[in-house]
Order: sequence, then C-alpha cells, then structure tokens
Amino acid sequence: MQLGLVGLGKMGFNMRERLREGGHEVIGYDPRPEVTDVPTLTALAEALKPPRVVWVMVPSGPITDTTIKELSQVLSEGDLVIDGGNSRYTEDGPHAKMLGEKGIAFIDAGVSGGVWGLKEGYGLMVGGADADVERAMPIFDTLRPPGPREDGFVHAGPVGAGHFAKMVHNGVEYALMSAYGEGYELLAAEELIKDPQAVYQAWTNGTVVRSWLQQLLAKALKEDPGFSQISGYTEDSGEGRWTVEEAIRLRVPVPGIAASLFARFLSRQDDSPTMKAVSALRNQFGGHAVKRISESG
Amino acid sequence: MQLGLVGLGKMGFNMRERLREGGHEVIGYDPRPEVTDVPTLTALAEALKPPRVVWVMVPSGPITDTTIKELSQVLSEGDLVIDGGNSRYTEDGPHAKMLGEKGIAFIDAGVSGGVWGLKEGYGLMVGGADADVERAMPIFDTLRPPGPREDGFVHAGPVGAGHFAKMVHNGVEYALMSAYGEGYELLAAEELIKDPQAVYQAWTNGTVVRSWLQQLLAKALKEDPGFSQISGYTEDSGEGRWTVEEAIRLRVPVPGIAASLFARFLSRQDDSPTMKAVSALRNQFGGHAVKRISESG
Amino acid sequence: MQLGLVGLGKMGFNMRERLREGGHEVIGYDPRPEVTDVPTLTALAEALKPPRVVWVMVPSGPITDTTIKELSQVLSEGDLVIDGGNSRYTEDGPHAKMLGEKGIAFIDAGVSGGVWGLKEGYGLMVGGADADVERAMPIFDTLRPPGPREDGFVHAGPVGAGHFAKMVHNGVEYALMSAYGEGYELLAAEELIKDPQAVYQAWTNGTVVRSWLQQLLAKALKEDPGFSQISGYTEDSGEGRWTVEEAIRLRVPVPGIAASLFARFLSRQDDSPTMKAVSALRNQFGGHAVKRISESG
Amino acid sequence: MQLGLVGLGKMGFNMRERLREGGHEVIGYDPRPEVTDVPTLTALAEALKPPRVVWVMVPSGPITDTTIKELSQVLSEGDLVIDGGNSRYTEDGPHAKMLGEKGIAFIDAGVSGGVWGLKEGYGLMVGGADADVERAMPIFDTLRPPGPREDGFVHAGPVGAGHFAKMVHNGVEYALMSAYGEGYELLAAEELIKDPQAVYQAWTNGTVVRSWLQQLLAKALKEDPGFSQISGYTEDSGEGRWTVEEAIRLRVPVPGIAASLFARFLSRQDDSPTMKAVSALRNQFGGHAVKRISESG
Repeated sequence: MQLGLVGLGKMGFNMRERLREGGHEVIGYDPRPEVTDVPTLTALAEALKPPRVVWVMVPSGPITDTTIKELSQVLSEGDLVIDGGNSRYTEDGPHAKMLGEKGIAFIDAGVSGGVWGLKEGYGLMVGGADADVERAMPIFDTLRPPGPREDGFVHAGPVGAGHFAKMVHNGVEYALMSAYGEGYELLAAEELIKDPQAVYQAWTNGTVVRSWLQQLLAKALKEDPGFSQISGYTEDSGEGRWTVEEAIRLRVPVPGIAASLFARFLSRQDDSPTMKAVSALRNQFGGHAVKRISESG
Repeated sequence: MQLGLVGLGKMGFNMRERLREGGHEVIGYDPRPEVTDVPTLTALAEALKPPRVVWVMVPSGPITDTTIKELSQVLSEGDLVIDGGNSRYTEDGPHAKMLGEKGIAFIDAGVSGGVWGLKEGYGLMVGGADADVERAMPIFDTLRPPGPREDGFVHAGPVGAGHFAKMVHNGVEYALMSAYGEGYELLAAEELIKDPQAVYQAWTNGTVVRSWLQQLLAKALKEDPGFSQISGYTEDSGEGRWTVEEAIRLRVPVPGIAASLFARFLSRQDDSPTMKAVSALRNQFGGHAVKRISESG
Repeated sequence: MQLGLVGLGKMGFNMRERLREGGHEVIGYDPRPEVTDVPTLTALAEALKPPRVVWVMVPSGPITDTTIKELSQVLSEGDLVIDGGNSRYTEDGPHAKMLGEKGIAFIDAGVSGGVWGLKEGYGLMVGGADADVERAMPIFDTLRPPGPREDGFVHAGPVGAGHFAKMVHNGVEYALMSAYGEGYELLAAEELIKDPQAVYQAWTNGTVVRSWLQQLLAKALKEDPGFSQISGYTEDSGEGRWTVEEAIRLRVPVPGIAASLFARFLSRQDDSPTMKAVSALRNQFGGHAVKRISESG
Repeated sequence: MQLGLVGLGKMGFNMRERLREGGHEVIGYDPRPEVTDVPTLTALAEALKPPRVVWVMVPSGPITDTTIKELSQVLSEGDLVIDGGNSRYTEDGPHAKMLGEKGIAFIDAGVSGGVWGLKEGYGLMVGGADADVERAMPIFDTLRPPGPREDGFVHAGPVGAGHFAKMVHNGVEYALMSAYGEGYELLAAEELIKDPQAVYQAWTNGTVVRSWLQQLLAKALKEDPGFSQISGYTEDSGEGRWTVEEAIRLRVPVPGIAASLFARFLSRQDDSPTMKAVSALRNQFGGHAVKRISESG
C-alpha cells in the first residue's frame, strides 16, 4: 500500500527500505534534502492519494508535537496518522484528540529492534481503534518479523496502549542490560575466570540466560575485550524514567528497573553528592579519613 | 565414549538419554531401583573400564560431598570425576584435593538448560586442567547444543571456574526473571493494556527484550492467564545468595541481582517484620492508623 | 498576634493549642462544630482584623485547593495565606498566583513533628517572599521548638521551597524508617539476640544511630514486643512517591528512598504479580515446583 | 575497679581517659611508647591484680586474634577478657573457646559513639555469661552515657550477641547515612532551595528526621558548604558487608542496607564495568553513541 513516512533518521530510513522491499510505495519526508523524497510536508500530503496513511518517526517530545500539529493542517478527514516514535503514552490522547477534531485517525505504535530491524523485522506494539489498526495492517505485517503475527505484533489496546507497552518494554530492557552488566563485572573481578568474553560467548546457546541482548554483549566484548575503549557514562532516552514514574502511579514495586535507572544517573556523575555526605559523616563521628579533592584528582 | 553417571533425577535422567542418543555408553547409578543401571557405586566402578570418567549430577551440598567421598574410595588413580551439580565453587577445591590425593582428576561443570536441555542441549561452563577437560570433551560436545563449541561451552579456568561462572549465570538469571516479572506487573496494572499475555507474546520476536526466558513467560501466561493458579512464593536454590556474597567479597555492586534475591525472601514471608516496624513508627509519631492483625486476617 | 487557622484535625488542633499557649489569638475554623470557633470561612474572615493572616492546615490535594480558592474569595488585598499542609510543592505556584491576583500573599510551610509537636514544637520549612515570612515570624517562632531559630526553622527559598524541603524530609524519613525496620528484622531473626527490644532501647543513648525515630521504635517495641498486634500493611501519604518522582526529574539516584517506597507498595499486596511471574518461569525452565493458590490459602 | 586496656588508638585512648575520670584504675598497653603505661603485655598482666579484667580495643581481624592469643598466655584462670573492637561476631566463639581452655572468661562488647564517646559516653552491646557481665559492670557503667542503664547498654545474649548487635547497628548506620545523603543531594539539585545547609540545620530540632547523625551532617555542611573539599570516595570497615551477608544467611531482605553498601563500592570505582557493558549494549542494538575513554578524560 501507499505510505507517507515522516522522519528518515536511523530508524525511519531503515523502515522505508524494509517497506519498499516489502512492495509498499513509501514517500518519505525529512528536512535533510539528501534523504527526503519530497520537499515539504505539504508536498507529502499532495503526493499521497487520499485516504492517506502517514507514519511519523521523529524524536519524541516537541518535534513529534510539531510534526503532528503540522500534519493535522495538511491532511484531511479520513486520513490516518501513526506515531511510531518513542512518545510518552500520555501524549497520545492529546494527539488523537487534535487530529480527531479534523476527522483524522490516530494510532500509537511502539517500535523495537533498533538498527537490526531492517533485516530482522521490528517488534510492534500498537494502540488505537480496531478499524484503524486493520487498515494499517499491511504496513505492520511488513515491518514486523516473519512468522506468526502475534509473535512480533500486538494490538495492545486503545490509543496510548502501544506506547505504554513500548515504555514497559524499554524499562524491562534497562533492567536486563544491568543484569548482564552486573554478571560481566562479577566475572571480570574474579581471577579464576580466564576470559569473561568466552563465558558470555558460551552463554549464547543452550543456557537459561541466552537472549538477543546477551548475544550482543558477547559480540561487544569480542570487539573490545575488557571494554578498554568505552566509558560507563550512559545516557537515557526517557522510557526508563517514565516507567518508574508510571510504576509509582500504579503502586507497582520495580526495584530492578529503578536500580538500573539510578545506575545510569550515577554513571553520569563525576562524584556522588550522596557519598560526599556519607564520607563527611564518617569523618564527623568516627574521625575516619576522608579523601580530599586534591588527592582524588 | 564410556561414562558413569551418578544421579538420575530431573537433570541426570535427561542427560543420560541425550548422551546415549549421541552414541555414548552411559552407565547410570541412582539409589532408586526403577531408574538405575547398577545397584551400587561399587558396581558402577566395576562396570566401567579404567581409566574411568564419572559424572556426578546430585543435589549440591552434603549429598555431593558424600558422593564424591564415596567415589574417591571406589575409583582409582587416573580416573576423572566431573561435578555437574550446582555446587558452590568454593567446594571444588576441597573436592579436587580429596580426589587428587588418590590420583583422581576433577572437573567442575556448570550445566544450564533445565528440562529443555534434553532436546536443545545444555550450556556448559567447566573448570579444570586442560588435559582433563580435553579428555571429557566428547561428553561435553554431545551435551552442549549443536553449533560452534564456543557458543554453548566454555573452559572458564582452573578448578572452580566452571561453578563460579554458573553461579554468576544463575545470579543474572534471577535479575532477568525479576525484570520480566516487573514488566508483567506493570502491564497487568494498567487498564489500557487489554491483555498482558498478548504483549509478552508479541515481544518474542523482533524486540530488543526477546529471550528464551521471555518466550517461556509468554508461554506460562498463555497456560495460566493472570497467574490465577500460582502463588508468588518462590524458593531459591542457593546460587543467588552465593552470587551476592561473592559480589560483596569482590566489592562489586549488584543492585539488580540483590533486589531479585530480596524479592524472593519477601515472597516467602507472611508479613514483613521490617514493615511492621515502619507501620508501628508511623503510628508513634503521626498517630497514623495501623492495620491490626485481626483486620488483616 | 492574631491568626486564622483553617483545619482543626490531628495537627491543626494541637497547633491552635500551642499558639494560644504562646499568647497568640487564634480563631479556628473546621467544618466539625465541636471544634470550630466560627461557623464559616466567611465568619472567620470577618472575625479577623485586616490585614489578616490565615493558616491552612487541611489534607493536601482537592481539599487544600478548595480551601485556598474559598479563602481567595473571603480575604482581601494585603492578607496572607500560609499553606501548612503536605501539599506537593508544584501546587504552590498556582495557589500563589490565584491569591496574588487579589493581592493576597502566600507562604508554603512544611511542618514536621507529628502528634509530638504540641509539646516539643514543630520543625518548620517555609517558602515565600522575605517580607511575608517576616510578617508571620511570631507564629513560626511559637510553633517551632525552643532554642536558636535556625535549628527548627528555615526560610528555604521562594514559594514552593518550603514544601519541597518538607517533601525531601519525608522521603528521607521513609528511608530512615526502613533502615531501622531492617535492623529490627535482623535482630529478631538471629537467635543469639535474647530480646530485640532491649537492643533498640540500648541504642537510644550514646550510639551513632540514636535518633528520635529510633527512640520511638524502642517505645513501640516495648508496647508491643514482637509487633504481634500489628500488620506490616503500610499506607503512604504521597511525599515518598513525589520524592522519587522529583529525583527522577533531577536525575538524582535515590536507591534507599526508592527501596523504602517500594517496600510500602509491597506491604499492601496480598501476593506479588512479579513473583508469580518469577515462580512460573522457574517452573517452565526447571520443572521447579510452584506453590499453588490452594496450598497457600 | 582495676582494668587492663590493650590498644590506645582513637577509641582506646579516649576510653582510658573516661574510665580514669570515672575513678577506675586503668593500665593501658599499646606498642607505641608515647601512649603506653607498660612496656609489654606480660608487664600488663603483672601489673594487674588477679582476678584480672582486660579490655582489648584493637583493630578487628588478625591483630585482635593475635592479641587474644597472647593474652591467653599471660593471663590466668579466673581472669576475664573483653573484646571491645569491631570483631565479626563469628570470631567470638573461637576466642571464647581458646580462652576458656585456660579458665579465662570472655565477653564481646560492641562499642558505639566514635570520637564523641569520651564526652557523651559510649553505647554498649555486650554478649557473654551473666556472671561475667556482672563482674565488668562498673566498667560498663562508666563507659556508657549517664541515665538509665538500659538506654545505653544491653546484655544482648550469650557470647557473640554483643558483636552481632553492633554489626546490625553499623548496617543500620550505613543506611541512615545514605538516606541523609540522598536527601542532601536532592536539596542541592533543586534550584528553589537557597541553601541545603540551612535546611539540614533546621531539621536538627522538632522534625521527625532529627538525629545525632543528622546534626553531624548539618555541622559538616556548615564547615564545608557544598562539600567542595571532600571526595565521595568512601571506605567501609566490614560491618556493612557482614550485615548483608548475615541477612542472606537469615533470609532477611535488606534492600536499604544493601543499597548503601553498594553505593560505597561504587564510590571507589573510577568507572563502572557494569555501565560500560550497558553502554556497549546500547551501542550494539541502537547505534547509540558511547563515550569513548578519550572523551571522558
């Protein structure tokens, strides 16, 4: 089918390719002339035959907001917008409302798979009305991995459900990554273990802990044994923070996910104010030596 | 090759089958007459042609201790004992020493894969001397999954390294399971999500969080939606506790693994003494109501 | 000085008494006829001589909202409203704005001390303009404990700073209570310890861990040794949740405070969905027994 | 009464002073000539009139071991040794046994209060036989703070109970310090708060979170606002590690104490191997940028 695709970055670019390989006609828009198919969003709307389906694949937050607002102006009644970015699920309702006022339908789609999705397919979690989801199904079927539809795609519920499921997916992902990281650190710390990389390689097949992330960690360790070239400084893109916030709202204890989130915050601190306070306290009551700034430089 | 196998429980029974299918001659011993091939350990030793290789697959702790001690009495110089159970790695040195005094070699082998290993192969992490590991390699090659040896097998280091790697493997496993559990609880708590099982099913393919455990959780949810038939009461078999203890020894922070261990402890408490104290405190300073035992029954 | 006091519950009632003992003229309003001094908010406004100072001490959330809105209608330019409840600090700005449009000033005041404040004084953390804080100082000076002003009172910053400081205070309080609870549970679990209460009693003087909460826990244990009459079920009133949410916003790792919050969530669950998932997983891969619901009844 | 005191470091030196002020005859031994009263342990034994009481106040571990062994050689039947250091409670049994074989009694005494104990008294937790504890009571009564005996002293149980109680005390102390540290970090991160030190000062009186440690933190912040001169690098002396290990043995969940222990481990790492792994993983699946070592220098 025909699809408009707004945003041709790391994810959108690959998705356009996978969709075209799947026989769809994709017209992509991106502000960067070297990748875009049309010069403007208006041109995109004109190039698509109504009723249109437009997939938005831009950074979450203000850029998604602006894009959807602009689409509401260039699209028409009966069209359908799919937000495939990592928007917070609470933004989906307002987006659906804004579009709905013009008779434009809305689907939120969580997309997982990263740079590997082009080849292996993308895991998809979508929220929206049944008819809208059905309408976009040819696109979903091409983007998702081969095999039974329910193994790589879920219509999780009404608008918002797709991004909620994706947010939880990413929260779980944080905790999984920390778990593998802790295991690596333990293996690397124990002198009995000749080579942590070989252990991670051996875990890729047959073990209970095998997974796609586990394979990637084995691969990363092979490429840079001991991670000598990499810092522990780790950004977070929002879903982990949102997951803990939603857990608090829902009164769900998430010690593992929260620990992995806090570990990221810590990784970006030069020194921990909390531990400065602890160190100062030990000095106060016990006369324990503290490490002065000049020593630690 | 010929192998003696002591312990024909859930794991050992399946391993005997896989090894026989792989063309090995396995003579199994187990105290239960209905499964054993020979009536006694002595008979086992007599049935094997020296130099013998005997795989011990019995519960860790006293039973493993006793078994290895008895083997040291019925085996002879030049034989090889492999402890494939979940022994703590600190027990391997003493076992190796006891056997070594009689000229019997020792390998510790961590075995992962559970009840699925029969069909899919077992992930193996072994510790011991090169020559000993080489000697048992035909056994390892049949037990491990098909594919490159290094993807399901590792000679992790000297005696102890196999069980250390397996212990870390299980510690990571604890944290992975809690991560998936937390994700499930979040999905189940949010009313937007129609069916958490469908989301877990959709995660099995294409997503970043896909894994063998993730697939099993989807399967478990399909078999018992909402886990209506199952209690959260969860035992632990030791490796999680040992992992945190070793982390403390090595000064490795393991917040994720520790959180998953504590969650198990909590799951086995009828009521938390810590929280009784907290509740009592709130009552003391704020006059906040406490829930009396009679109310909570 | 003269003060209007809205809300004569557990906290407000005691505060009226302490203020009157301190020589202030307090006119209290509460919907309950048995405690109120005036029949309506309008009557309260009429009974106070302008420029008025009115302290609001009602439950945070909608009741505080409504109260402040009603006060904006019955008070006049030049008056001052102090919100002494546990409002979230983000609500202070809108309240200040609404009142400010009528020329009414606003102070947010975090009040600590619980039921003991009547006798010992209340710890106060306030936010607002210098002149407004100065104006209410006679009230603050009577409410706070005797001794240097800066030891029980802080003008923490502009509007919002008082409630922010109080929120952090309560977040820290959560973690302190859990710390003492964990210590109690450890002492109670170890058979060498004859009587955990005696240990907590001994900690009240001379030790590094001595504190007001610690003394209260010793007292609670004396009143109900072993906490045989109390359930671990523990409510939370919001500040702990807000503290973790603000920590996420500020990218501050708060593993201790978060752990104590999650422990409260857990204390209110009959069974943990997370651990049901973990237990189901163990059964799937290892054939480990699960506890069926019928067994755990 | 007369007392031998072995070890005149930061703690022992002050205790000698406090005991002498309390009217006791203290003969101190320390290898450092400038502080010792007698040249050798033998001289100490000779200077004391049997039956002797000797208090050992030396670093836990090998030095305590050696000291008690040497005392078993120079003391006689009927004497009493008190280990007041921070020995792990599991060491008390062997020490008691070694001394007991010579008819020498043993008490383990946990001592809290740090450098402030000289003036304010020391919190004491002791383990041993009733008669032995009774015999040393004049010493305990002088060391402990004034006031009711049970408020600063506990005979917690048989040999080992004193050090167990002290270990838990220190585990709780870790979590308390982290709680105050997290609160400080939150206040310092929020721009509404003019001066975190002023808030901590205000918490010292009237608030629910007031405590001795809280006062010390306010004092430390006054001395070095913003902790500009101090690093977060924080040592640990063992009790926190032991507390978590004992919690694991007793199956007691201690998320707060464990979090504070892991925070210390983290404070001593230049970079986190766990987070290197997480960062490498993000790069693998998402093409997310990693921070190269050269950038972080």
